[in-house]
Amino acid sequence: MTGPTDQAQAELLDPSTERGARAMLSHLVEAGDHTLSALLAADPAPEVLARVLSDSSPEFGAARLRAARVDTRASAAYAIRQGISVLMPGDAQWPDGLIDVAEAPVCLWVDGPLDLSRLRWSGVSIVGSRAATAYGRDIAAGLAAGLSERGYAVVSGAAFGIDVAAHRGALAGGRGGTVAVLAGGVDRTYPAAHGPLLAQVRELGAVLSESPPGWAPQRHRFLLRNRIIAALTAGTIVVEAGLRSGSLNTARHAATIGRPVGVVPGPVTSMLSAGCHQAVRDGVATLVTDVAEVLDLVGRMGQDAAVRPCAPAAPQDLLSPADQVVWAALPIRAATSVDALVFATGVAPGALMAALTRLELAGLAARVGADWRRRAS
Amino acid sequence: MTGPTDQAQAELLDPSTERGARAMLSHLVEAGDHTLSALLAADPAPEVLARVLSDSSPEFGAARLRAARVDTRASAAYAIRQGISVLMPGDAQWPDGLIDVAEAPVCLWVDGPLDLSRLRWSGVSIVGSRAATAYGRDIAAGLAAGLSERGYAVVSGAAFGIDVAAHRGALAGGRGGTVAVLAGGVDRTYPAAHGPLLAQVRELGAVLSESPPGWAPQRHRFLLRNRIIAALTAGTIVVEAGLRSGSLNTARHAATIGRPVGVVPGPVTSMLSAGCHQAVRDGVATLVTDVAEVLDLVGRMGQDAAVRPCAPAAPQDLLSPADQVVWAALPIRAATSVDALVFATGVAPGALMAALTRLELAGLAARVGADWRRRAS
Repeated sequence: MTGPTDQAQAELLDPSTERGARAMLSHLVEAGDHTLSALLAADPAPEVLARVLSDSSPEFGAARLRAARVDTRASAAYAIRQGISVLMPGDAQWPDGLIDVAEAPVCLWVDGPLDLSRLRWSGVSIVGSRAATAYGRDIAAGLAAGLSERGYAVVSGAAFGIDVAAHRGALAGGRGGTVAVLAGGVDRTYPAAHGPLLAQVRELGAVLSESPPGWAPQRHRFLLRNRIIAALTAGTIVVEAGLRSGSLNTARHAATIGRPVGVVPGPVTSMLSAGCHQAVRDGVATLVTDVAEVLDLVGRMGQDAAVRPCAPAAPQDLLSPADQVVWAALPIRAATSVDALVFATGVAPGALMAALTRLELAGLAARVGADWRRRAS
Repeated sequence: MTGPTDQAQAELLDPSTERGARAMLSHLVEAGDHTLSALLAADPAPEVLARVLSDSSPEFGAARLRAARVDTRASAAYAIRQGISVLMPGDAQWPDGLIDVAEAPVCLWVDGPLDLSRLRWSGVSIVGSRAATAYGRDIAAGLAAGLSERGYAVVSGAAFGIDVAAHRGALAGGRGGTVAVLAGGVDRTYPAAHGPLLAQVRELGAVLSESPPGWAPQRHRFLLRNRIIAALTAGTIVVEAGLRSGSLNTARHAATIGRPVGVVPGPVTSMLSAGCHQAVRDGVATLVTDVAEVLDLVGRMGQDAAVRPCAPAAPQDLLSPADQVVWAALPIRAATSVDALVFATGVAPGALMAALTRLELAGLAARVGADWRRRAS
């Protein structure tokens, strides 16, 4: 994204256009309104706007109160001055993933160059507890960096704890970029401590919100914001979550619309991993422990299948169980007789001689006269 | 178990009895021998013993070599002097769980008072890495103690790390007792450092082995011993396991015979939890985090279902989502007008008044003249 076009800016100031009407509606009606979503799915936004503003719809009483008090045109002009653009369904940059959201966003206020349309296929949401431990923050940053290195964008909510670790890891990864979905306006720095981080995200990735610039992050907007985080990407990873963590709410949103959910396990002594463990036990999430397993979960079919981790095999591990028994019975220093080996292993003499010959060929046993010893592998 | 009866002792010295022949066979043929198991399933042990000792069966050549060298009668007499008894299929104390083992033990050498027959229904195997971390040892001891307190016996292998922590925890729990399954003879103290522990287990629980007293613990006997640990109990819990841990071998044995397998998660940064995590990802094990969840996995139907953990709910959590929005918008100190609330929440005036009334009835909102504020819950 290279900033809003002149045409999009002109539309934004004109409520008779689809974009201008949607921008105005996003001031008047709270995000996640089911009635408004249904109306916008059926009719052009200028018509819907007219209906909302008419006295005939009591459910939009609050919208008319706001319309009388908020200068939505000034708000749009401010957004243009700030380089904030408004995306709407049908735009090339409109995120593919939002198609599954029941209460679709009326529009998105966006600040930053990252192309949002690709998040559905090469974006991963990483969320978790605000009160994260050092363990959780390290894992979140490591996963985000690894995903970013492989070209995946990391989406999160810019909150304390896991969110900010994920954004920072993604920026460090350097390739995939990162997207912060805010509960208030994209120009609001919340929490205040994350000002420098959000400035970086605006410059290198994108900050977006359903709420217009300047709007305060409020409790219910946080919950609604979670459905956007879940819907934008190919899948959601929860790094640390207590039993009632808001990040489990994000995970449920993802599962509801059929997106894979991964959770990172942790010590069972940590209440901040309890929500993750329960999600695995409930069958709503897959346990993931590293970037490869995250890619296996969310990755593009046939491209990112995780290599199953395994420890390197020792030569004797490749032997049959019976040959292993004989190998284990061979002394390492002094050699021993076939009779003694028969006695020690319980393997019949003929089978034992055959096993010794196989071990000799494999370089794992050596003859010393008539006796045998193990050979260093 | 109150020690072997006089009759059982007499049988042990007489290879023409089922018990005596099986005890002798356990000296001559290594544990886990499929041919011997099949023969014993079809014919009385004295007949099988005669066949093994006859020259007509080349697969038992090693057994005849051993028969010429080992004084099995002296070994049986030694066992009797030590208070070690020999259990065989058909005995009241024979463990129910062994019925599912393909290569059934020929007999079990047992030292200790614990009734082995009940392990199938009130025993849990706890296994894991020898190189366990403090985290793993604490969890193993805690699970074992909790199970023991609830009357469950804990079965393990007396190895360093998780095994010994499980035995100690079970002894501390005080009720269920503990059983050590050894790879060598029950009188062998292996590892040597666990002498005092094994003495306690012999006194309060049971030590058992497929191998006769005095026999050395050998590599292949450890692997075979795992199938006994898995088969004895209602289920197996792996606390810490690297990717190639022997305790995963025990878990596979348990899964093969249809016994539930639980694994305890840990930090993804610990290679000692990697095997546990992989078992969950592979779908062969259930993630468990506490005693209740272990009981849920292995427990007697209808008796031990785990209470799903949940954090306590705050009063406002019981509100509908719409009422929560209004509650969150209420100021805590100064009161605010209905108009301002309509503006802040986007909720229509009629719906907002209804919500405020509900909140007032729930004790969560208070009127101040015409204004409203939040009430401390």
